[in-house]
Amino acid sequence: MAARLSNGRSRDPSRDLGFAFSVEIRFVVTGRLTIALDVMGGDKAPDIVLHGANIALERFPNTEFLLFGSEPQMAALLERLPKLRRASRVIHTDDAVSNDAKPSQALRSGRRSSMRLAIDAVADKSAAAIVSAGNTGALMAMAKLVLRTLPGIDRPAIASFFPTERGESVMLDLGANLSCDANNLVQFAMMGEVFARTVLGLLQPTVALLNIGAEELKGHDEVREAAALLRLTPLAPQFQGFVEGNDIAAGTVDVVVTDGFTGNVALKTAEGTARLFSFFLRQSLKNSFLAKFGYLLVRPAINKFRSRVDPRRYNGAIFLGLNGIAVKSHGGTDALGFANAIGVAIDMSVHGFLEKIRVEVEAFQNLQPNSEAALG
Amino acid sequence: MAARLSNGRSRDPSRDLGFAFSVEIRFVVTGRLTIALDVMGGDKAPDIVLHGANIALERFPNTEFLLFGSEPQMAALLERLPKLRRASRVIHTDDAVSNDAKPSQALRSGRRSSMRLAIDAVADKSAAAIVSAGNTGALMAMAKLVLRTLPGIDRPAIASFFPTERGESVMLDLGANLSCDANNLVQFAMMGEVFARTVLGLLQPTVALLNIGAEELKGHDEVREAAALLRLTPLAPQFQGFVEGNDIAAGTVDVVVTDGFTGNVALKTAEGTARLFSFFLRQSLKNSFLAKFGYLLVRPAINKFRSRVDPRRYNGAIFLGLNGIAVKSHGGTDALGFANAIGVAIDMSVHGFLEKIRVEVEAFQNLQPNSEAALG
Repeated sequence: MAARLSNGRSRDPSRDLGFAFSVEIRFVVTGRLTIALDVMGGDKAPDIVLHGANIALERFPNTEFLLFGSEPQMAALLERLPKLRRASRVIHTDDAVSNDAKPSQALRSGRRSSMRLAIDAVADKSAAAIVSAGNTGALMAMAKLVLRTLPGIDRPAIASFFPTERGESVMLDLGANLSCDANNLVQFAMMGEVFARTVLGLLQPTVALLNIGAEELKGHDEVREAAALLRLTPLAPQFQGFVEGNDIAAGTVDVVVTDGFTGNVALKTAEGTARLFSFFLRQSLKNSFLAKFGYLLVRPAINKFRSRVDPRRYNGAIFLGLNGIAVKSHGGTDALGFANAIGVAIDMSVHGFLEKIRVEVEAFQNLQPNSEAALG
Repeated sequence: MAARLSNGRSRDPSRDLGFAFSVEIRFVVTGRLTIALDVMGGDKAPDIVLHGANIALERFPNTEFLLFGSEPQMAALLERLPKLRRASRVIHTDDAVSNDAKPSQALRSGRRSSMRLAIDAVADKSAAAIVSAGNTGALMAMAKLVLRTLPGIDRPAIASFFPTERGESVMLDLGANLSCDANNLVQFAMMGEVFARTVLGLLQPTVALLNIGAEELKGHDEVREAAALLRLTPLAPQFQGFVEGNDIAAGTVDVVVTDGFTGNVALKTAEGTARLFSFFLRQSLKNSFLAKFGYLLVRPAINKFRSRVDPRRYNGAIFLGLNGIAVKSHGGTDALGFANAIGVAIDMSVHGFLEKIRVEVEAFQNLQPNSEAALG
């Protein structure tokens, strides 16, 4: 039996039977799960946040929500969402972090903002995770300050998943760190691997470093050093060396590790290319009478195609390496997209992402002296 | 009247009337143009090289070819391509650079290789340009050694063009330089701008630096420094600041400038995403009877769509900054793709890429002292 995952994902049962079983047990034991929502974050807040929470609640009926934001603005919406209202607690605040606020500014003056209070709820254990569609830089800065990084992790990273020819894969860092040294990349590999186990439900995800050539001699020093280090860690059997940009969509490995500059460019280049393809396809199909008629027949197929690359399915930039679970939804997403971001936060909570990371960090730290000695 | 360009490209006459006119004049003045071909380079050499040359000859009847490679292997093919045979001179050599040769190895032992002799022909002015589908690293190393960089250019870069929502754009560097300082990036901007004028036929191409955020504070030091420098150069009116990964396919600017690591990842990520889309689309259309029938009707539209994203149209990684024109065709391309790579080399030769670069370098050098003073 395959475990139910967020975003309509289903685990591959052949790869994952044992794990799926443990998940079911865990669900029964942990019972209700509380998620903190920054109701004022995002282009279409609070509307899509509450409607998104409502969809998530249908998918995960054991969830309850802490709703941080303007009570008057929420009241009218909640009236029309009675189930959500019963499963939620509203914590009123007038403050919100604006989309154009600098991270430093948000840190200084946003202490009573909906975003900050929602993060605080994770820090004081009132909630298992926080989800926000607000200002990314502010969210990362606040989450770092309040939740701090996990022991053994120097810097948090932003991860997300992608559709591939083989299913789905994870990439990180997508923009939290401009430059990374070899140790940062090794820690990202570790976090990405645990994330793929937790959210994609893979037993032994494969991992690789993004580079510009498969040969050992190519690439930046830090990438080559990270490869040498990874071969000495418990991840060695899953580490596949280097992959190139085209391997991301091919699904050559389950976890693609890179620095935040390169990862951000790759992510946005893929998004741009996807949009270009849709644009060209739409133009071509609109431009002839025959095509318009034929389109009626192929529409179900095209819609199926669209759903496979629907950005809402892949909504959720996940902050990994913090002492708490924080998921950033795309600012311009709709209710379905926001529900998927909540789903990722729930998966990470229910499937024990933080505990798994702690176990992995320990296994790494036991080996660290050896690996450093080996590298000289 | 729009000038005829390689790859079936057509200039936008509204943007380009004056320039197109000067091109026509130049064509008459220069007469026949000689292109050196590495006949032994590429996965399907010599077959696709000669058939590609034959297609290029139909498009550009004023071309003649120097064919470097094994005469016996060429003989049978040329017998079936009489027009090409009449327009060509075969220079026999037994040596060829293998696909897996290291650049250093090719430099040492490849002095009589078809690739090296073809480059030599450009150095001694027997040919205007060289086109090869062989080993990229070896081609770059040999071209750098033999042709050297242009005065005022510190490092060559690899450029190519991309389909965008607005037409086509140019990106560089795609892998010649792992790391670049601000001056390298400024020189790439200059070379890319001249390339866009020469091959895309734009009068005043817009230029931007690839970065991970539009705000001035984001990005690596060298990218921010390059932006400051570019604002002080003759390119300032065309310089649009920073763009992000999604802007490449959107066609936000005509020339996207970045370091070789990032550019290579972006290029291959875009290729991978394009392949993923085609894969999903094909799968969707195959999976239902109705879709199969409807596909017959939309096929012409889909084919039109395919031709817009056909990688053969964008075949040709161009080595910019060398004292000679060198174009690298994709190793796995077919005859049409190789013909397009030849077309790029012809465009660059006919439209005076090297002279234009010299003029631009001079304009920059006259301003250099000011810009350095301004940066302190």
